[in-house]
Amino acid sequence: MTDDLKERTRRTASLYFDGLKGERPYELWRSFDPELAREFSLFITAQLYARERISHPTRQLVSVAALTVLGQVEELRMHIHAALNVGCTPQDIAEVIFQMATYGGVPAMNNALRTLREVLKDREAWPLQKEK
Amino acid sequence: MTDDLKERTRRTASLYFDGLKGERPYELWRSFDPELAREFSLFITAQLYARERISHPTRQLVSVAALTVLGQVEELRMHIHAALNVGCTPQDIAEVIFQMATYGGVPAMNNALRTLREVLKDREAWPLQKEK
Amino acid sequence: MTDDLKERTRRTASLYFDGLKGERPYELWRSFDPELAREFSLFITAQLYARERISHPTRQLVSVAALTVLGQVEELRMHIHAALNVGCTPQDIAEVIFQMATYGGVPAMNNALRTLREVLKDREAWPLQKEK
Amino acid sequence: MTDDLKERTRRTASLYFDGLKGERPYELWRSFDPELAREFSLFITAQLYARERISHPTRQLVSVAALTVLGQVEELRMHIHAALNVGCTPQDIAEVIFQMATYGGVPAMNNALRTLREVLKDREAWPLQKEK
Amino acid sequence: MTDDLKERTRRTASLYFDGLKGERPYELWRSFDPELAREFSLFITAQLYARERISHPTRQLVSVAALTVLGQVEELRMHIHAALNVGCTPQDIAEVIFQMATYGGVPAMNNALRTLREVLKDREAWPLQKEK
Amino acid sequence: MTDDLKERTRRTASLYFDGLKGERPYELWRSFDPELAREFSLFITAQLYARERISHPTRQLVSVAALTVLGQVEELRMHIHAALNVGCTPQDIAEVIFQMATYGGVPAMNNALRTLREVLKDREAWPLQKEK
Repeated sequence: MTDDLKERTRRTASLYFDGLKGERPYELWRSFDPELAREFSLFITAQLYARERISHPTRQLVSVAALTVLGQVEELRMHIHAALNVGCTPQDIAEVIFQMATYGGVPAMNNALRTLREVLKDREAWPLQKEK
Repeated sequence: MTDDLKERTRRTASLYFDGLKGERPYELWRSFDPELAREFSLFITAQLYARERISHPTRQLVSVAALTVLGQVEELRMHIHAALNVGCTPQDIAEVIFQMATYGGVPAMNNALRTLREVLKDREAWPLQKEK
Repeated sequence: MTDDLKERTRRTASLYFDGLKGERPYELWRSFDPELAREFSLFITAQLYARERISHPTRQLVSVAALTVLGQVEELRMHIHAALNVGCTPQDIAEVIFQMATYGGVPAMNNALRTLREVLKDREAWPLQKEK
Repeated sequence: MTDDLKERTRRTASLYFDGLKGERPYELWRSFDPELAREFSLFITAQLYARERISHPTRQLVSVAALTVLGQVEELRMHIHAALNVGCTPQDIAEVIFQMATYGGVPAMNNALRTLREVLKDREAWPLQKEK
Repeated sequence: MTDDLKERTRRTASLYFDGLKGERPYELWRSFDPELAREFSLFITAQLYARERISHPTRQLVSVAALTVLGQVEELRMHIHAALNVGCTPQDIAEVIFQMATYGGVPAMNNALRTLREVLKDREAWPLQKEK
Repeated sequence: MTDDLKERTRRTASLYFDGLKGERPYELWRSFDPELAREFSLFITAQLYARERISHPTRQLVSVAALTVLGQVEELRMHIHAALNVGCTPQDIAEVIFQMATYGGVPAMNNALRTLREVLKDREAWPLQKEK
């Protein structure tokens, strides 16, 4: 891995997840197998997230979409944080989640909206402000 | 429904799905129940797709993401068409599908890549051109 | 929407969910977007639930079936309440859940049985009474 | 197993699946392991389907609901046949499938409607007749 | 059922689940329907688990794999216990869970690793010991 | 990546998939993005499959289990080939698939049994031979 890629990876991880409370996936993996943890982390962050083909906000919104329909609440929480960190508004994220009712059903949408509201409360950004 | 919303809905449906071959969901629904077909269509197109909160390209990419991890191949085909129609490049769509391996697994990604390739062949846009 | 449909919708919502504790989906949606909440609510309750093609008990039992195999516990809780409110017995509901093992696997069945038991306890209808 | 249960089981299997074309699950299982095939068949048909707690039409409609949201098209085809054989109308079955959009999403509903239409064509019952 | 099968079944259940805390599925089922509970239990334990076609460790590892990608955490907990009881090491189980990222995605893997760690803590086998 | 790992990776890929007809995932990925294809391939084959923590037959049987309950038929076909190539018998594979009914439901089991039978026919190993 080039130094440039290493640096971009470090910046991407920091951009997405700084300020996130709780155990990170990397720490979970490392508690079982440090070497494999490193490989997973490099693969996901360096080979996927740090690519510049699509913008960071788009990358986070497609993650929110997928995790909503999969019902993966813990991971969704992380990517809602990341989406807010890269400049998505709460309204954008809610919009994506509302649209997911069509593909993944209303119960999946409801679970995701509850998760979004919890994250916004954690960040003291609830209730939603009227946008100007 | 106001005339304005009706007009925006018509334009959205046309923007997304013009040129798409095969039966549209609306026609399928109508073959069972014309009244319910109309309600479904208005709800999905007018109340969700025609909203302007997020851009059309973003709306299509989050659809591609969700349909990839759900393994909904027929619907995915429609939204890949729509994504190309609103200006996403094949590379953008592939990028979103590749990222989905992380959330929905590699087999779901493989199915979606095969679907993307078929759509591009149908549109005579395969193999991918180098971007300038 | 005609007054008649509006009235039937109101009666359906009341029939299903009166006495249910906790936040309702409509309230959750409204906390994000009052206008969209109204559209979702009208679509689901007026266009789907208030139709009279199948009986209310059948409509609730098919909901229980779907939510069991999808593992959507929160939504299942609501529809178990609704099923009891429209006259299904706890034994009918358990029978549907037991049958779901065949389609959705035993773990999904177990989660749903635990949810049913919790709802019955909340309604002070546990343990099951022998039917005469 | 008592003679009575055996007889009820035989009658249930015949009621549901007579006239169904293609390989039955029992034949598939038996091609691998005759003994296990017999156990599966007794368990599912005798212990679950032949019970009389809920009516046959209800039992088939909850199966249709579950198989729709699971996207299990082959099995759905069988249970649509069974539903029609025990007296459900095509309109009842379509109604259940339409309702599933709420829980399992629109793509799952679309796949199930296409399957229903194919079964009705096979039985020369398409297009739908107006009900009196 | 022969005495021999009955005995093998009893031994299998004891081998897998002795020492497991919390309500067992059989007890859950029995609280609703004692007769059906008995049928489920015989079918799963006697007809499936007590077969000797594949070894107990293999049978438990394939269960861990399936429950990981299905996200069935409660059932996974039981089969991690069973896997440890029949001689799988924590490292074997972690290895299977890590591999599941490929098929079921990283969030499913993360949930399963957290469950494994909880079970190991319950059994006072955490942190992992270096293997000799 | 050390030469030793590179060599083990090459041998693993060859051991699993030699003789498999049809497009391999690596070729699919490469048709979109050669660089990313290489990263995916190294990650999955070198970092996961080539590890020696569990035996190749166990690794393939857990893959069969996961792909059965996920309903990923194309990928399942590949791993049934791989399982046979590393010494699993058709009966072992069928046994794992039968057990999956418990976790993922009977329709998922049926789809997987049909896939297994097709692979065995392709390899001229059907019908099953009595084992000595």
